Amino acid sequence: MDKLFVIKVGGNIIDDKEKLSSFLQLFSSIQSPKILVHGGGKIATSIGDKLGIKSKYINGRRITDDATIDLVTMVYGGLINKKIVAQLQALNNNAIGLTGADGNIIPAKKRAVKDTDFGWVGDIDKSKVKSQKLKALLDSGFTPAFAPLTHDEQGNILNTNADTVASSLAIALSKFYNVRLIYCFEKKGVLENTDDDSSAITFINKEKYKQLLKEQKLFAGILPKIDNAFAAIDAGVHEVLIGAADDLIQNTTNKATGTLITQ
Amino acid sequence: MDKLFVIKVGGNIIDDKEKLSSFLQLFSSIQSPKILVHGGGKIATSIGDKLGIKSKYINGRRITDDATIDLVTMVYGGLINKKIVAQLQALNNNAIGLTGADGNIIPAKKRAVKDTDFGWVGDIDKSKVKSQKLKALLDSGFTPAFAPLTHDEQGNILNTNADTVASSLAIALSKFYNVRLIYCFEKKGVLENTDDDSSAITFINKEKYKQLLKEQKLFAGILPKIDNAFAAIDAGVHEVLIGAADDLIQNTTNKATGTLITQ
Repeated sequence: MDKLFVIKVGGNIIDDKEKLSSFLQLFSSIQSPKILVHGGGKIATSIGDKLGIKSKYINGRRITDDATIDLVTMVYGGLINKKIVAQLQALNNNAIGLTGADGNIIPAKKRAVKDTDFGWVGDIDKSKVKSQKLKALLDSGFTPAFAPLTHDEQGNILNTNADTVASSLAIALSKFYNVRLIYCFEKKGVLENTDDDSSAITFINKEKYKQLLKEQKLFAGILPKIDNAFAAIDAGVHEVLIGAADDLIQNTTNKATGTLITQ
Repeated sequence: MDKLFVIKVGGNIIDDKEKLSSFLQLFSSIQSPKILVHGGGKIATSIGDKLGIKSKYINGRRITDDATIDLVTMVYGGLINKKIVAQLQALNNNAIGLTGADGNIIPAKKRAVKDTDFGWVGDIDKSKVKSQKLKALLDSGFTPAFAPLTHDEQGNILNTNADTVASSLAIALSKFYNVRLIYCFEKKGVLENTDDDSSAITFINKEKYKQLLKEQKLFAGILPKIDNAFAAIDAGVHEVLIGAADDLIQNTTNKATGTLITQ
């Protein structure tokens, strides 16, 4: 199977014009088929503030009300996404900017209300991702760049976690490709010592993970990321890499500086 | 050659939630391959007002400064475009929302500064429109929905007249399709008597146009639209139709209620 890179870049890079530009240069130089998934960034909050749309949080989680879904549709799906597309085009990458609504590629369900009504937030049904349509775009030479938005197939855009968008796409495309899912991270990778950026663990499989947990060598905050990585791998993704945005090129090779997670 | 409809809908429909919904229902029921091009609408101005971005005009023409291009990228390329896509998806149309930057489909040049600096405004080089890429999307079953934005291939989004986007796409696709370019209009069509909506002229060719001009039967405001229609036809478009949004379905047939313009 051909290699495919699904690469997620977060708000910390998006918010910094120079960092974004450097990142896009690295991304554009990857020769294999590739997909970009970008996060939101603080710009939505600052534009929202000016528009009088207050970010609401319940238990630390953002609530997406009517005004907020319009805000993120504009900012993520329009401003950020199209600027990235234009920059990638200038770098001779044939980027096409998408949300999960476009081509119905990522249908989702509005999150059911239990204790909290999160509003227009989407949970992706991974089995419904239109991998064939996405493959058709890749085969036509396009480089898809996704904003973290999906839809409910009933006319509504849904705010969706960018990490989940990336893993859902990686899983769906594992039918056709040998997928490496890369999370660009603030650190070099999963660190043995959180204060020492040179302590990145180069390789974690399930056995090693058990051992690291037993030895209590992992920072609690990283555990959900590793669990999600194994969930993607169990669903067919070949490997997951957590590494620094600056090291993107090296992290697409066998000599990655980040943490490679496999079965 | 297969029939293709390129349909432009303007801000007057976009700004009215119910009119837009009715229009999209009509549009979605067209069975032939089709492309939607939407205009901007007043919502960009109202959001811009809240953000403190003032619309600047010189001699009645809008100037697109740095703040304004970000505004229209958000609103046209994000808010309006993605809402239309989600609604078309709910109507079982496999819409894909695009700007001219996506897939480099519509490269343009920033308008040269002569007397006036219009800012980030794009003039389309019709010969550079990527008709083959667009045909690949149509062949894959997608219904492209374009926001009135292009790019300069150097990383910058450009604000571009929606009528021109529509005619440029229609011209480029005339290589592959028998194209009817439809402009949805506030009136039934080109009227002999501007106060009488039932006086639409059903058919204009160049001979008839000369005659109408000679008889001074045409309202001056409509002349540029007709001239643009003939320019599209001279460049290969099979026919241009100017008609009411409500009559869209009938205007895709041979019994159009609007004004059909041909060679």
